[in-house]
Amino acid sequence: MNFDELSDYLDQSEKRIKSVLDQSHVSDYFKPEDIKNSVLSYLDRDAKRLRPSVLLMAAGALGGRDREELALSAAAGVELFHTWTLVHDDLIDNDVLRRGGATVHEAMRKVARDKYNLSPDRAVEYGRDIAILTGDMQHGWAVASFVDCALDSGLDPVLTLKLIGHLQSYVLGNLIFGEVLDVRYGMHSLSELPDIDEDSIVEMLRLKTGVLYEFAGMAGALIGKNTCDFEDGEVQAITQFAGNCGTAFQLQDDILGITGDEEMLGKPVGSDIREGKKTVIVYEALKNANESQKAQLLATLGERQATDEQVKATTELLRVLNGIDRTKELAVGYINNAIPYLEDIADSQYKRLLMLWAKYMLDREL
Amino acid sequence: MNFDELSDYLDQSEKRIKSVLDQSHVSDYFKPEDIKNSVLSYLDRDAKRLRPSVLLMAAGALGGRDREELALSAAAGVELFHTWTLVHDDLIDNDVLRRGGATVHEAMRKVARDKYNLSPDRAVEYGRDIAILTGDMQHGWAVASFVDCALDSGLDPVLTLKLIGHLQSYVLGNLIFGEVLDVRYGMHSLSELPDIDEDSIVEMLRLKTGVLYEFAGMAGALIGKNTCDFEDGEVQAITQFAGNCGTAFQLQDDILGITGDEEMLGKPVGSDIREGKKTVIVYEALKNANESQKAQLLATLGERQATDEQVKATTELLRVLNGIDRTKELAVGYINNAIPYLEDIADSQYKRLLMLWAKYMLDREL
Repeated sequence: MNFDELSDYLDQSEKRIKSVLDQSHVSDYFKPEDIKNSVLSYLDRDAKRLRPSVLLMAAGALGGRDREELALSAAAGVELFHTWTLVHDDLIDNDVLRRGGATVHEAMRKVARDKYNLSPDRAVEYGRDIAILTGDMQHGWAVASFVDCALDSGLDPVLTLKLIGHLQSYVLGNLIFGEVLDVRYGMHSLSELPDIDEDSIVEMLRLKTGVLYEFAGMAGALIGKNTCDFEDGEVQAITQFAGNCGTAFQLQDDILGITGDEEMLGKPVGSDIREGKKTVIVYEALKNANESQKAQLLATLGERQATDEQVKATTELLRVLNGIDRTKELAVGYINNAIPYLEDIADSQYKRLLMLWAKYMLDREL
Repeated sequence: MNFDELSDYLDQSEKRIKSVLDQSHVSDYFKPEDIKNSVLSYLDRDAKRLRPSVLLMAAGALGGRDREELALSAAAGVELFHTWTLVHDDLIDNDVLRRGGATVHEAMRKVARDKYNLSPDRAVEYGRDIAILTGDMQHGWAVASFVDCALDSGLDPVLTLKLIGHLQSYVLGNLIFGEVLDVRYGMHSLSELPDIDEDSIVEMLRLKTGVLYEFAGMAGALIGKNTCDFEDGEVQAITQFAGNCGTAFQLQDDILGITGDEEMLGKPVGSDIREGKKTVIVYEALKNANESQKAQLLATLGERQATDEQVKATTELLRVLNGIDRTKELAVGYINNAIPYLEDIADSQYKRLLMLWAKYMLDREL
């Protein structure tokens, strides 16, 4: 499959979003320096900007180039919204790496230790505090960026308010629900995992990831069509399309977390295994394992000190026990569900891009 | 001074705000139960609702009863905004009590320990995680409540967007700046405190507290007058009035933290002393202390194990060394600055209430 057209579009999107963010008046309020650096850190790193790109493609598909252009600040708002959830999520997960660099709380822990000479415990607290406040600031910036889309770019004020209201109630609430479920799953040891069924894990992925993709598609569609009617047929079609693709994205993400390349992922190979991340892969493998395989999996999954050898053997076992294939099958199912939603959308470059993007969800390697 | 008229108004406000919150559609998205309980916990406890009341009084002063009524969801939004900052601030400060009950992170730590049987370390993490996500949800609810003010109550959509944009950039950024300064001051031992001058402490109070009061006044004034002109003379007058009163509020809060009554404050007497809270009171007292008094202060301030006897002696020393009087003097100065701003506002019940409220900032005992 040739994704060149999509790659070009994503590269362009990244530049356009970056330019909106660079020119934002909100950056006047990133104080002091530790907050400014932290608010910008993830945004300055390489990333695919898939969520804002979906918003832009959806706007283009229903409204053409001018509406796509008008949607830029809203697209930036979706990227910012995603970013603050990463900062808080990384703190909650105690992760130290994101996009090839330190997470906010980890970077600020080091600043507190090396620059402010705080004790180890106090340095951890400073990292935590700055990460909380950084996410809070980015959350505000995300909303302010939607406001700019109306006041600076001319998006209909009532539509803008409806988008903000939906983002701050339905989307946020579902995302937090998914995050709490994830935290809860993390509270159980892996040997108890089969009590959680596959549907629960997929539902958690939908809440944590699918719902924001769904919003990106919906917001783009509404902006493209310049309507406030959330129930409009074309708007609903793109909403469902994007939501299904978003869940597939996360399933593929879990596969890459096991089989992916260190360079491309920006995090060490095996980290999902050492962290004992609860995925469909692990659930399926444990379900199919015999007693000795199960013992072998439980000895490595969630074991931070696992050797590279053990990680390699576990990766192979997850594959042999159908974990990867089952997850891929689910991802393919979501994409197959998604694609027919585009049938009644008029042909255009944007529709072609959306179609490519759906297929890219399964083919991507980073 | 007779504050009966103000007391009646505040009591009514509390009921009106409560009713808006109780009927909010956003509560559909408070999931799971730990999030729902946490999002509502501070709101269900006794509180004065001063910030939303200022917004309502300002709206009434410039627009009469109908505009005041129309502003209710915006007033609720200010209360919600204040609430999420409390939840995150309590976590950052490691405080265990708020309004006479457990803070969110502390209550959820206990749930994790007693209901989920987590280890002490994991229980602390669960408390932290739920507190982060609770504040995030309330942050979204605050914004959604402003949206409701437009879409349900008929507030001008463009004005609503301007208010949301200002709240999420200027107000939020300054508040976070103040919070980081507070965290930084907490990193220094008290013996180093005199390096921070009085102006810096007062500026920190202005950022952490004054700016949101300023916003409450400004939002109420703009809604009352139904204008988008932030530079309007009357709007500016009420903005400055409310900001000055807000800083006085916090200065008085620090006094009550030392001299106040346990019942009324909802936190143990002496907690500010045992926590070593950096206030003008402490700064002034240390500045005026001789070597032996300084040693005595430093031995108790920030000492979590200090006895009631020591706390009592320190309270007396802070008073003798002019800490309380100096803080009161500053608070009076802010109120004296504030009151003339009301001169050109037309007389009304609302103006009378605002004037009473300014004086109440100095007289209040809780």
